[in-house]
Amino acid sequence: MKGFDEIIARVNECAMKKVAVSVAQDDAVLEAVQEAKKRGIADAILVGDEAKIREIAASIQMDLSDFEIINEPDMIQASLTAVKLTHEGKADMYMKGLIDTKNFLKSVLDKEVGLRTGGPLSHVAVFDIPGVDRLLFLTDVAFITYPTLEDKVHIINNTLPVAKACGIDCPKVAPLAAVEVVNPKMPATVEAAELTRMNAEGEITGCIVDGPLSFDLAIDAEAAKHKAATDRKVQGDADIMLFPDIHAGNLMYKALVHVVPGVQNGCILTGTKVPVILTSRSDTFETKVNSIALAAVVAEEMRRNEVK
Amino acid sequence: MKGFDEIIARVNECAMKKVAVSVAQDDAVLEAVQEAKKRGIADAILVGDEAKIREIAASIQMDLSDFEIINEPDMIQASLTAVKLTHEGKADMYMKGLIDTKNFLKSVLDKEVGLRTGGPLSHVAVFDIPGVDRLLFLTDVAFITYPTLEDKVHIINNTLPVAKACGIDCPKVAPLAAVEVVNPKMPATVEAAELTRMNAEGEITGCIVDGPLSFDLAIDAEAAKHKAATDRKVQGDADIMLFPDIHAGNLMYKALVHVVPGVQNGCILTGTKVPVILTSRSDTFETKVNSIALAAVVAEEMRRNEVK
Repeated sequence: MKGFDEIIARVNECAMKKVAVSVAQDDAVLEAVQEAKKRGIADAILVGDEAKIREIAASIQMDLSDFEIINEPDMIQASLTAVKLTHEGKADMYMKGLIDTKNFLKSVLDKEVGLRTGGPLSHVAVFDIPGVDRLLFLTDVAFITYPTLEDKVHIINNTLPVAKACGIDCPKVAPLAAVEVVNPKMPATVEAAELTRMNAEGEITGCIVDGPLSFDLAIDAEAAKHKAATDRKVQGDADIMLFPDIHAGNLMYKALVHVVPGVQNGCILTGTKVPVILTSRSDTFETKVNSIALAAVVAEEMRRNEVK
Repeated sequence: MKGFDEIIARVNECAMKKVAVSVAQDDAVLEAVQEAKKRGIADAILVGDEAKIREIAASIQMDLSDFEIINEPDMIQASLTAVKLTHEGKADMYMKGLIDTKNFLKSVLDKEVGLRTGGPLSHVAVFDIPGVDRLLFLTDVAFITYPTLEDKVHIINNTLPVAKACGIDCPKVAPLAAVEVVNPKMPATVEAAELTRMNAEGEITGCIVDGPLSFDLAIDAEAAKHKAATDRKVQGDADIMLFPDIHAGNLMYKALVHVVPGVQNGCILTGTKVPVILTSRSDTFETKVNSIALAAVVAEEMRRNEVK
């Protein structure tokens, strides 16, 4: 078993997690929540316009008797109510429904009831690609536009618990670039080398960082062998793909989704108190369900660390 | 027939083209040249160390009686001799052999015998991706690192004859970004919009430019429909993918090559008097042969334009 099947198996081994849905009157989100419940991935608390939620549920043959509903027709209020449930530990993860991203993020960042931890948030897209023998963690393909070196450290640290939750205790991190050698005229390569140094000197821990790396050296052991990259700590076996900026990351993300047959993916926001699910309307049903599963396994990992 | 099969069919319809190989004592290059000859794609003039060329040819069962050989053991001299053959019209395209890229490019840019046209050179990678109903022209994934707006105009103009040579008279150009709307905080989107305006106002001709575009809107008609992008000139049917910088382009290029089953590609340098083939050792045999075919069809297109 590998990929999202393995993630779902992990989720099924833990106590059932609960997702608080912000403005739940969204057919695609309700379908995903229904499927997550059916597969034993998560329960849900639906916060939003109850009449509309019931109307949509009827249209998709969804049995609402299994779900707690909190009626709050005002979208902003609904988002604050939903995020507060996770803030208070009544739910384990927080999911965007029919609310625009800006207001959803406002609720995530709310100083009183939100999910701030102090550091910046970042996005991670987890991919199961046919022919690749492990999950790949792509970051940041959707949230931080032009990460500074400091941001990149935060992105790595935000991503480590996600990898750990998926069973990878000491992930290999590839700060990606067009080339695998430092070129002073290419800032992405200079920062990649600096991240590698910080890791070697114990400033970034819990992972192995080796960059700059071209995509082939990060992903393909044969290519690494061919290029005789024997002195590298990453030999085509990177887990975390750290992109130089959002253009590089997002173009790759969309390409993998749209041209690779049989690809599976799920995404969450990290750097928050609990995992945040921020799927877009263009994401498939399967991606939404995978994202809930990913959030659940990360929520379990976070809970275990709290207990320690 | 589509993709590189179609390109090779086009090549087979024209008079046989000839490639001048710079420092030809390279087993992978000789194998590709041999195959190109066999498939009727191109003849070759092999410039380099004749003894070594003969030695390698013997080891790969290559019959050299079909090829002209010019003995020049000195690498720099060999490159200048080879490029001069194309400069003088004795060969139709110029290919890198066992010479480092820096010195190879020096010969390309040589003021006396080189292939300068006045504008900057750029690289185009042509992809035939299973499930995509047309060829995709990715640029620039290997040569220009951080193109300015002016560079991007040159890149488009350099790529148009390549698309035309492949049968696309008025290609659709997608200046790519993480998002499909202009965001003043993302320079790539601002420049994409500016390229679109320049095209609309006749400053860039022979193509349809529409950007910024995310990868899904550039490549996937269903995604374009789903996002209700009905006001766009490109609706998932872009031919030329213009990348914001070399990191975005190169990471995508390597990902397509390494994770998409059955993908085919070929690459050339453009903006030169004749097409230049600059494959790397890590390129597959098939990619090298495809690159020769691509160069041949572009050489034919250039010849036709000269005749006009």
